[in-house]
Amino acid sequence: MYSYLDLVKQTDSVPYPKDVQHNFIQQKCYAFLAHDGIPIGRILPFVVEHLTGFPSVLKVDHNKQTVKISPSMDTVHARSEMLSRIVNEWRRKKTFKVLEGWRDELYCVYNPTHTEYLFIERAAAALFGVITYGVHIVGYVPGPELKLWIPRRSYNKPTFPGLLDNTVAGGIGYPHGIMETVVKECAEEAGLSREYVLSHIKPAGVISYNHQRENTVELEEGLFQPEVEYVYDLEMEPDVIPKVVDGEVESFELFTIDRVKEELKKGSFKYNTATITIDFFIRHGILTPEDEPDYLEIVQRSHRLLEYPVM
Amino acid sequence: MYSYLDLVKQTDSVPYPKDVQHNFIQQKCYAFLAHDGIPIGRILPFVVEHLTGFPSVLKVDHNKQTVKISPSMDTVHARSEMLSRIVNEWRRKKTFKVLEGWRDELYCVYNPTHTEYLFIERAAAALFGVITYGVHIVGYVPGPELKLWIPRRSYNKPTFPGLLDNTVAGGIGYPHGIMETVVKECAEEAGLSREYVLSHIKPAGVISYNHQRENTVELEEGLFQPEVEYVYDLEMEPDVIPKVVDGEVESFELFTIDRVKEELKKGSFKYNTATITIDFFIRHGILTPEDEPDYLEIVQRSHRLLEYPVM
Repeated sequence: MYSYLDLVKQTDSVPYPKDVQHNFIQQKCYAFLAHDGIPIGRILPFVVEHLTGFPSVLKVDHNKQTVKISPSMDTVHARSEMLSRIVNEWRRKKTFKVLEGWRDELYCVYNPTHTEYLFIERAAAALFGVITYGVHIVGYVPGPELKLWIPRRSYNKPTFPGLLDNTVAGGIGYPHGIMETVVKECAEEAGLSREYVLSHIKPAGVISYNHQRENTVELEEGLFQPEVEYVYDLEMEPDVIPKVVDGEVESFELFTIDRVKEELKKGSFKYNTATITIDFFIRHGILTPEDEPDYLEIVQRSHRLLEYPVM
Repeated sequence: MYSYLDLVKQTDSVPYPKDVQHNFIQQKCYAFLAHDGIPIGRILPFVVEHLTGFPSVLKVDHNKQTVKISPSMDTVHARSEMLSRIVNEWRRKKTFKVLEGWRDELYCVYNPTHTEYLFIERAAAALFGVITYGVHIVGYVPGPELKLWIPRRSYNKPTFPGLLDNTVAGGIGYPHGIMETVVKECAEEAGLSREYVLSHIKPAGVISYNHQRENTVELEEGLFQPEVEYVYDLEMEPDVIPKVVDGEVESFELFTIDRVKEELKKGSFKYNTATITIDFFIRHGILTPEDEPDYLEIVQRSHRLLEYPVM
């Protein structure tokens, strides 16, 4: 049985500076630096090995443990093209297993001024440990007993097959805006119309955490995935039923809060959707500071200040 | 005109490790250490000066810049008594202006196991920079146009006279629990009955920030006040009107959201109640990530992970 804090720690799994294991990361990993020296990601040694062949555009410094984009790469286009060439070559050579999940979708990395700094193929983001962005929508039916619409992930999905999820979730790929992604994903994953979503959706905050892949995942171990997930509540009428549209979802089921709690404790949810469900519980007064001993730490860890520039 | 991020930064005003000013704090301040060496607060040099006379119970080390409770102080009672003697002596001698606000109310400092470590007079907490705890209740009337009950602080209050506030707020003093403090303060500050509060209140999260007093405050400059504020929503019927009970509130008024926004931007709210009002806006979808450029930073800074053990 997992506690709620256990689940949040699986999501926000990168050690904090005060933690003993933090030094291990500092000693082992390389900082990924923008061309002006600002850190934008964290790269593991087994990836750095494959970055030493491009000294004119990407400088690896083993003493400083940095991988720095060359000052000559001074446009969004130049930086994005340079990374695209590298990761496409890796894909062709089957250098990394994560690239088998190639999406042909670009994620954006930002400047400190919140403007676009570079674009990178979604599947390659974790190799550079850059921040990625997504939306998570919790669909619920109010009433004397509030219920949540919970999908089970397809058993054919390469990542987290068969686990439970938030009603709808998806990454924010270029050039889609936040709300545009919400509308798109609600249609693609739950068959909800644009009009229905726009008239029922409510932004409800944002979750951020610093995730490091566990060795239980079959892909490369230890990759960094700092993430920002915009959270939305979708209050639904009892007769509106989400539909399985694409192959990503096995089925939707209306869960009571007690059932959701039980499945959380059994570890049936995908790691980050567990954290977003716990945040829903906190925002809706289902978890209280007097009943939940780790209330404060749960809230703080799921709103972690990330070290890099953000959207 | 203040931006929402400006207001949050006034609340969460202690620099972060990446900020230039952070070194200044490290260079200048003394860590306040528990008898086992765990940091529990931060003390300014003008306070440390008055702590050098008690070497058997409190050891000041100018090289390490620490003030450490002696290992012999191995009970809650011994530690609390020791601090009580020191701060009572300061009060008698009028050593610090903050002690003019003496409350005869004890705040609790915690162990890493969330158990009680020591008690300290409320007015003296900032001299040691320990974490303090409170509750903030946002009373609102739902409807086509949601409205908030906003009190104006009494013009006779020593702190922040005449500023706007959350409907009800108060510190969690020993031995009161969190919900007990909510009920107590709602009665004392707004004349709301226990029954009414318990049937209408909903816990809605917790805010944490690391505040440092500004030099615009007439009290000692630069004292540290890391704070944890449990947040509650109180949905009220239109005919329930909060009453001025004690002398702390000048008047209550029902504000539209537009009026609240306007007063926030003018800086009319007490610093931390501004942050809690912004959190209400975010939780209720009044601020959205697409309209508010600093959405993410606002959310992260108002859920700051504090460096010391907590409740």
